[in-house]
Amino acid sequence: MADAPYKLILLRHGESEWNAKNLFTGWVDVNLNEKGEKEAVRGGELLKDADLLPDVVHTSLQKRAIRTAQLSLEAADRLWIPVHRSWRLNERHYGALQGKNKAETLAEFGEEQFMLWRRSYDTPPPPLPRDAEYSQFNDPRYADLPPELRPQTECLKDVVVRMLPYWYDDIVPDLIDGKTVLVAAHGNSLRALVKHLDGISDEDIAGLNIPTGIPLYYELDADFKPVTPGGKYLDPEAAKAAIEAVKNQGKKK
Amino acid sequence: MADAPYKLILLRHGESEWNAKNLFTGWVDVNLNEKGEKEAVRGGELLKDADLLPDVVHTSLQKRAIRTAQLSLEAADRLWIPVHRSWRLNERHYGALQGKNKAETLAEFGEEQFMLWRRSYDTPPPPLPRDAEYSQFNDPRYADLPPELRPQTECLKDVVVRMLPYWYDDIVPDLIDGKTVLVAAHGNSLRALVKHLDGISDEDIAGLNIPTGIPLYYELDADFKPVTPGGKYLDPEAAKAAIEAVKNQGKKK
Repeated sequence: MADAPYKLILLRHGESEWNAKNLFTGWVDVNLNEKGEKEAVRGGELLKDADLLPDVVHTSLQKRAIRTAQLSLEAADRLWIPVHRSWRLNERHYGALQGKNKAETLAEFGEEQFMLWRRSYDTPPPPLPRDAEYSQFNDPRYADLPPELRPQTECLKDVVVRMLPYWYDDIVPDLIDGKTVLVAAHGNSLRALVKHLDGISDEDIAGLNIPTGIPLYYELDADFKPVTPGGKYLDPEAAKAAIEAVKNQGKKK
Repeated sequence: MADAPYKLILLRHGESEWNAKNLFTGWVDVNLNEKGEKEAVRGGELLKDADLLPDVVHTSLQKRAIRTAQLSLEAADRLWIPVHRSWRLNERHYGALQGKNKAETLAEFGEEQFMLWRRSYDTPPPPLPRDAEYSQFNDPRYADLPPELRPQTECLKDVVVRMLPYWYDDIVPDLIDGKTVLVAAHGNSLRALVKHLDGISDEDIAGLNIPTGIPLYYELDADFKPVTPGGKYLDPEAAKAAIEAVKNQGKKK
């Protein structure tokens, strides 16, 4: 058992093939594109430069987060650390929007409905039928989950609810052991975690964007609350520019 | 708990930067070269074609085995399976030979001594000093091991002794759970395991070579003994050709 401050690093996966096409991805298992691979390597270099070397990594079950972890850890020469994965760190399930173009969805449904689905805390998109083209309901990686745990749509609140047990049961114990913990995950599973850590309200979380590929470092006190609210990006200027870009995503064609 | 036969796949890492240079590698953490990366991808394709999809993977702490696992699992679309790593699956520590050219070592010490170090069951090379250039004695990945577990040289017998606890305590339970288990490791840690599985004598193990990058599939009966002695390579012809090539390694310049 180690004393606080505990060391936690959050890393959102680099750009994926569908980010670049401006499609809603959710649980669809899309790969990183070349830019995303480079972002992941750069993320690992930032860790190495900051001498923030992870002792353990937690990832989702989705390859864009898994490969981001692999590429960044290879760049930091830490490929050998223990790895844990969970569906609880997966991206938010985007329901019937999965596979749809963001700009087209905006045009089809209007800005109010669009922003409600994207940013409201508790309004999920319509559910995706189990046998739909972009459904992962029957993917073998989720075969161990009873059907009621396999989402067909999620709002951010749903993500908080399913992510928190993993935080408490799997990540916190590693922090208590004194390990520097890397969590390689997704825009919304990390927003859910940041909401919890920083005590962000249901309203204010709508305005929080996490950029891809830039490690976000939190020191946590003995109560697992941030020593510095909001943590610290290892490349603050790039983070600022990227956050602006995410905000404008819906406006891209 | 599942019934036999249990499904075990052994995969020796693809060619590394030092294999290609004909250097003794042992515990030195050398990366795959481009040929090795391709071999790993091909290994994963063979798994996919044979519909032998791993449910869990065990690797050493060395990047050439870790990356072989990653690349082959990516090719088989199984990146998301649980991962476990242990120094007990590491390559044999080659002692004072680490970093030396195999052909030069052969010329310097003569064939008898050379073959004794390479292939005898119980004669280790001279120990590598803890602070030598190619020593990994103080590498952070082994910091949790008491000094007496961090080898300075090993013979194959030493590898059997340190590998077997991992087999019994970590791999067998996965087999009993009914999982298809992939072990991505090294020439000598896999020879140690095959010696145990097939009951090969201390003398006969000298003649056993395992080719790189070709999955070796064992069905094991209820006593964890091979249904087919020697298992089955997923590409038998390539395996045969590669085994011949390994035999001639010492003769290469």
